[in-house]
Amino acid sequence: MLILATTSISLLSQENLDFSAVKDIISPEIHNDKSVTFRFLAPHADNVNVGGDFLPSNGWMPGTEQMTKDKNGIWSFTTKPLDSELYTYAFYVDSLQVNDPNNVYYRRDVASTLNILLIDGGQADLYKVNDVPHGTVAKRWYLSPGNKMTRRITIYTPPGYESSKNQYPVLYLLHGMGGDEEAWMTLGRASQILDNLIATGKAKPMIVVMPNGNVAQEAAPGESSKGFYKPNFNLPHTMDGQMEETFTEIVNFIDNNYRTIKNKSGRAIAGLSMGGFHSLHISRYYPNTFDYIGLFSAAIKPNERTQSKVYANIESTLQKQKNNGYKLYWIGIGKDDFLYKANTEYRSELDKIGMKYTYRESEGGHTWRNWRIYLSEFVPLLFK
Amino acid sequence: MLILATTSISLLSQENLDFSAVKDIISPEIHNDKSVTFRFLAPHADNVNVGGDFLPSNGWMPGTEQMTKDKNGIWSFTTKPLDSELYTYAFYVDSLQVNDPNNVYYRRDVASTLNILLIDGGQADLYKVNDVPHGTVAKRWYLSPGNKMTRRITIYTPPGYESSKNQYPVLYLLHGMGGDEEAWMTLGRASQILDNLIATGKAKPMIVVMPNGNVAQEAAPGESSKGFYKPNFNLPHTMDGQMEETFTEIVNFIDNNYRTIKNKSGRAIAGLSMGGFHSLHISRYYPNTFDYIGLFSAAIKPNERTQSKVYANIESTLQKQKNNGYKLYWIGIGKDDFLYKANTEYRSELDKIGMKYTYRESEGGHTWRNWRIYLSEFVPLLFK
Repeated sequence: MLILATTSISLLSQENLDFSAVKDIISPEIHNDKSVTFRFLAPHADNVNVGGDFLPSNGWMPGTEQMTKDKNGIWSFTTKPLDSELYTYAFYVDSLQVNDPNNVYYRRDVASTLNILLIDGGQADLYKVNDVPHGTVAKRWYLSPGNKMTRRITIYTPPGYESSKNQYPVLYLLHGMGGDEEAWMTLGRASQILDNLIATGKAKPMIVVMPNGNVAQEAAPGESSKGFYKPNFNLPHTMDGQMEETFTEIVNFIDNNYRTIKNKSGRAIAGLSMGGFHSLHISRYYPNTFDYIGLFSAAIKPNERTQSKVYANIESTLQKQKNNGYKLYWIGIGKDDFLYKANTEYRSELDKIGMKYTYRESEGGHTWRNWRIYLSEFVPLLFK
Repeated sequence: MLILATTSISLLSQENLDFSAVKDIISPEIHNDKSVTFRFLAPHADNVNVGGDFLPSNGWMPGTEQMTKDKNGIWSFTTKPLDSELYTYAFYVDSLQVNDPNNVYYRRDVASTLNILLIDGGQADLYKVNDVPHGTVAKRWYLSPGNKMTRRITIYTPPGYESSKNQYPVLYLLHGMGGDEEAWMTLGRASQILDNLIATGKAKPMIVVMPNGNVAQEAAPGESSKGFYKPNFNLPHTMDGQMEETFTEIVNFIDNNYRTIKNKSGRAIAGLSMGGFHSLHISRYYPNTFDYIGLFSAAIKPNERTQSKVYANIESTLQKQKNNGYKLYWIGIGKDDFLYKANTEYRSELDKIGMKYTYRESEGGHTWRNWRIYLSEFVPLLFK
């Protein structure tokens, strides 16, 4: 309360403004036609722009849209009607990027924290909290002897899990480089997608397990004893085989602590980018463990200098995985993704050994927009 | 990755800067002597200040500290050595308040989102994630027939709960006006305080239940089907008796879903401000339910126009609560709190009827700083 009051006073002290207009700034305002008005109070600024991924382009556009200033110093810009999606945006005040102080909804992506905005009426209805039964989301810690630490893990249990006596299938859902055990919940809207697909009968009730794929980390930035540090991509052991080798610790922890179907018919593994790489290699390294595999914009090949035995026999373990049988091998990639070529080559290799897969090619590139779409298409195919 | 890259380019495009210095901005930087350097890149700005609650004053100071600009356009300011505490701060760029783009750690308080910073070596060591066993934090939904909705609730279970067969005591921990079921976790650092007090043997392992005290709300802003709206204080039914009347739904949900001690010897209730008001009235309205009561900067009296039967017989229900017996009635208030006088008057009333309490008077006012201190002092007194 005190902070709000003093903030308003400091912003207004040198101006003679219409206080009610300033106090009631709504930004973003979503109109009935799905156009959006952004507003920003900056009486002293010479120029304010808005940018984001709501523009008709591939990815983020920094500050391309010129805002206009009213007599109270409020800058505004209204978009064209937008497609249903979860967008991010920022303001550019005299070329300085700032967040929207009137929007408390943020998502962190590595070291960048941006405001979000949701346009419903289509795909993004799956990303909304709707008036449907909700699962439980728990942040727990499990012992990882292989990494010599306890590690944080996010676990979604579906509506009804606690009061049921049933055994449930499990989707292991892995993040990409720079992500952590929170990424699929915050950027990926995984609990909303699951709640909504389960509520409409499009997906089976399932447990979703979201571990931290950076085995050097105990937990997401700020959630471990390392304190509040600036996140970066520079983590050791991200793709050197250690995640794959210690993955059985996670499966055992889940099987020992939850009512799960404890064989491959009740297990799926999927991930984006580095998490797709992990899913590919975990599923063939333990070739009789998962009936459902999802590679979302996956990295494919290990670094050539990597010595791990995990990557020693890729073709023969894929053969073994094929011979053991599986129900779904799903590959999704965007036409503009920098990993498009690697995925095309990987599909040729799979074709060569006669390993069946389902292929989904989308527009766009290496983006959370695509990964949310892939998740919402992949989950209905599981455990049927 | 893409966002980070384009952001840097947009900030630098009109300048000829030392790229490595700009790229590696660390803010805040905490030095060994516990002084802090704040840094902010704003080559075009005429004036940049920093403000926050790290200054030697009561509460938030907006932009009083002048920063200085170097040749790369990076503004900086270094504080004196700071006491151990969790602080919030913001930058003021030509009088416009903005957050620190190099600090991804934020906390929302009603409609205001500010960066945080933690100085260890004292009280705030309790607010850190330390290398100790960690409890589980779950976001669940419970059915509230009295409020005709399902409602979100945050539940902390202590380390070892899942593998134990023991019954555990429960602390019901309530937020203030403008807060919700997330406030005690984000602003109050409740899970860290509990983890740390339990690890050192200063507190008994206990379950901590953090409901949403705004009975008109299903969940925190952005977490219900109302979508991403701008939060405010304007909620109906916050202090009209309905929270108290429907509180048994929460106790029953917890007793039915967790291994709890199902009588008053295993129940505590505490809250801040409105949550202190709720704790006061819930504990006397159900006068044989809680052995431990904590009022942190509590509001005391109901609005005179409130008709609820909950507030009809305050003195006689307090008498009943006294006669039934309890172990601890703890009142904490800051000398500068606007509720100080109301608490003094309430203590007189308790004295009149001979109702014993423990009184803790602190420096400062109606702040999360005080509520974290009160929680860390209250919890060790429970269930002994």
